[in-house]
Amino acid sequence: MISNKGRTVPKSPIRKLIPLADDAKKRGIHVYHLNIGQPDIKTPETIFESIRNFKQDVLSYGPTQGIPMLREVISSYFNEDYSLDIQPDEVFITTGGSEAVFFLMLATLNPGDEVLIPEPFYANYNGIAAIVGAKIKPITTSIHFGFHLPPRDKIEPLITEKTSAILTCTPNNPTGTVLTQEEMEMLVNIAKDHNLWLFADEVYREFVFDGRESSSFLKFEDALDRIAIADSVSKRFSSCGARIGFIIAKNKELFDAVMRFGMARLCPPTIEQYGASSGFRTRSKFIPDMVKEYEHRRDVVYHEIQEMDGLFTLKPEGAFYTVVKLPVDDSEEFVRWMLKDFEIDKKTTMLAPASGFYATEGKGKDEARIAYVLKEDDLRDAMKILKEGIYVFNNTH
Amino acid sequence: MISNKGRTVPKSPIRKLIPLADDAKKRGIHVYHLNIGQPDIKTPETIFESIRNFKQDVLSYGPTQGIPMLREVISSYFNEDYSLDIQPDEVFITTGGSEAVFFLMLATLNPGDEVLIPEPFYANYNGIAAIVGAKIKPITTSIHFGFHLPPRDKIEPLITEKTSAILTCTPNNPTGTVLTQEEMEMLVNIAKDHNLWLFADEVYREFVFDGRESSSFLKFEDALDRIAIADSVSKRFSSCGARIGFIIAKNKELFDAVMRFGMARLCPPTIEQYGASSGFRTRSKFIPDMVKEYEHRRDVVYHEIQEMDGLFTLKPEGAFYTVVKLPVDDSEEFVRWMLKDFEIDKKTTMLAPASGFYATEGKGKDEARIAYVLKEDDLRDAMKILKEGIYVFNNTH
Repeated sequence: MISNKGRTVPKSPIRKLIPLADDAKKRGIHVYHLNIGQPDIKTPETIFESIRNFKQDVLSYGPTQGIPMLREVISSYFNEDYSLDIQPDEVFITTGGSEAVFFLMLATLNPGDEVLIPEPFYANYNGIAAIVGAKIKPITTSIHFGFHLPPRDKIEPLITEKTSAILTCTPNNPTGTVLTQEEMEMLVNIAKDHNLWLFADEVYREFVFDGRESSSFLKFEDALDRIAIADSVSKRFSSCGARIGFIIAKNKELFDAVMRFGMARLCPPTIEQYGASSGFRTRSKFIPDMVKEYEHRRDVVYHEIQEMDGLFTLKPEGAFYTVVKLPVDDSEEFVRWMLKDFEIDKKTTMLAPASGFYATEGKGKDEARIAYVLKEDDLRDAMKILKEGIYVFNNTH
Repeated sequence: MISNKGRTVPKSPIRKLIPLADDAKKRGIHVYHLNIGQPDIKTPETIFESIRNFKQDVLSYGPTQGIPMLREVISSYFNEDYSLDIQPDEVFITTGGSEAVFFLMLATLNPGDEVLIPEPFYANYNGIAAIVGAKIKPITTSIHFGFHLPPRDKIEPLITEKTSAILTCTPNNPTGTVLTQEEMEMLVNIAKDHNLWLFADEVYREFVFDGRESSSFLKFEDALDRIAIADSVSKRFSSCGARIGFIIAKNKELFDAVMRFGMARLCPPTIEQYGASSGFRTRSKFIPDMVKEYEHRRDVVYHEIQEMDGLFTLKPEGAFYTVVKLPVDDSEEFVRWMLKDFEIDKKTTMLAPASGFYATEGKGKDEARIAYVLKEDDLRDAMKILKEGIYVFNNTH
């Protein structure tokens, strides 16, 4: 009675352990959530102000493609900050970045078609691909190379007649890796040579460290007929609950298909679009500080990892994640144990087991994602508890 | 390069004519929008207040299934107003009623499976079914019987091995028909006897006129393992732009599948869930008045229709729509003409051509949906313009 998709769509590996965390909280344990990309950075007051100032008699449907004001500020954002030429009618507002990825896959992948994605990758791509009926073909990357892409001759053999698109995420969730200009070029060239779509999830666009330049696949002007961007205000404005994302697509056929999918869900939430517009207008007032704060946290986490026996990662380059190799056989078992059986002073630390970020069976079993979304003191305490936890776990298992 | 679904998903027949209306507005024409279910009734102030009073530092992700407060007030709403026994964990908050219908279809219909829907039906079911890959098999109803259901022996032959579900909407968009207790029973019995799901879109639940009792398919206690409700706050609280809907499902397997689909889109918008909670808590303060107002408008529209030569409809029973037979061959051509070539004192009236509400090719070509979502004076003026328009159109075409 339940459809095949209904039976097989996977739980989010990030969300599925939440009940264990809830149980721990019921026992009075404070859980440091390094498992989920939910920042503790305050949402800019200007966003809340616009929401409070929403003054219309009727909270009515908006346009399918989003309100003109938001589409205009997003086009200005790209044109001013990245010297691009994006028109408002190339901006489609979605209900969160997840809908942006969903619509892009749905518009280009028939059931059974394949999309190449570097792994480890954002786990919800699995759920979205499953809903679309598409198959994710992973481009495996390694922690030992900082999760950078393998050379072209390792990627091209993965392309089959069924391959329709490449989807990449940079700066990357879950790895924190920022693609180099050369890597971006390589993907664009592969897409061109094999007639593939190239979709880039750039929700962490500004989150780059150590003097790296924030960039976008939209810079590849001669390939914009096959490139589309999935984006969101969730991380950029610390507004995950706003559910405002967007697609940038210059390809008219693609935009038109997205538009028709969008009609079936009428419109994205109205009020948050006003909030997001304010966010973009005042972005220079808080994005640089926020990125500096994340870079500092990155330093803290990376330093703590270096101090811990048996943990390994290369220095994360952007976003606010890193994938670490743990000295355990099964990181999910360890994460469960940390929630069920471990505490220090009524506190414990929750990570996201990395196997959920891999499509290749068995990969990442000894890895976990750390989201450094807490302020320095909490982060240090959480890492101290993690260190103790690993020690105790390995001496009792 | 565009997927089959991307090429074939239909435009919303309601939204596709918007550009013509926009053009008319650019020419300085005021357009009376009787084409779209966007009420002019003020959103209750209590909803805006809760939105303004949202005081959290971070606009963060909420739970996949919605915030506990909203799930609790919705369960109370059913239990208090309809003497039901709905638990909060049988309530799944969606991003609009459209997502509720989408998740229900996705969870129960494999590609190629069939869903029976009385036609004319809410046109977005087409888009949603197309995204799911399901086939809509229409149960044709007639304007001459007020769009009530045909007898059981006309419905059962439509059921094949591929049929997985029946989807009905009562009070109905686009027809304004309210299913009788007997009709509801018949559908429940058909679902039971043929092992089908029975999904009811009840977003207009309270919108019933002439002393009819507001009801729900949830009343059929012995069939609740196969019944699920799609609902929304859009019309009930005049909050279409909030994008808050919900599913009620007692079937655990179905709820679990919906939960996993939900994880792929993380959560519904956070702030509006607080607004919706307030709406439910204070519902008795405005729903009865609102329904009375719609009943009055129904009287106005119905009276105007009776006065007009060649128009036909039976008295609408609920929701805020009616489908009328127009004295024209092609109502879409007429609607386009009204927007492009007709005006009285710089005003025109827009209807929704009804063919988009039928799955059967050629049906409804001389019908149109009127949404009586405007206040009395506007409604009378809009109907007067419509009358003139029909006269002029028929004398020039």
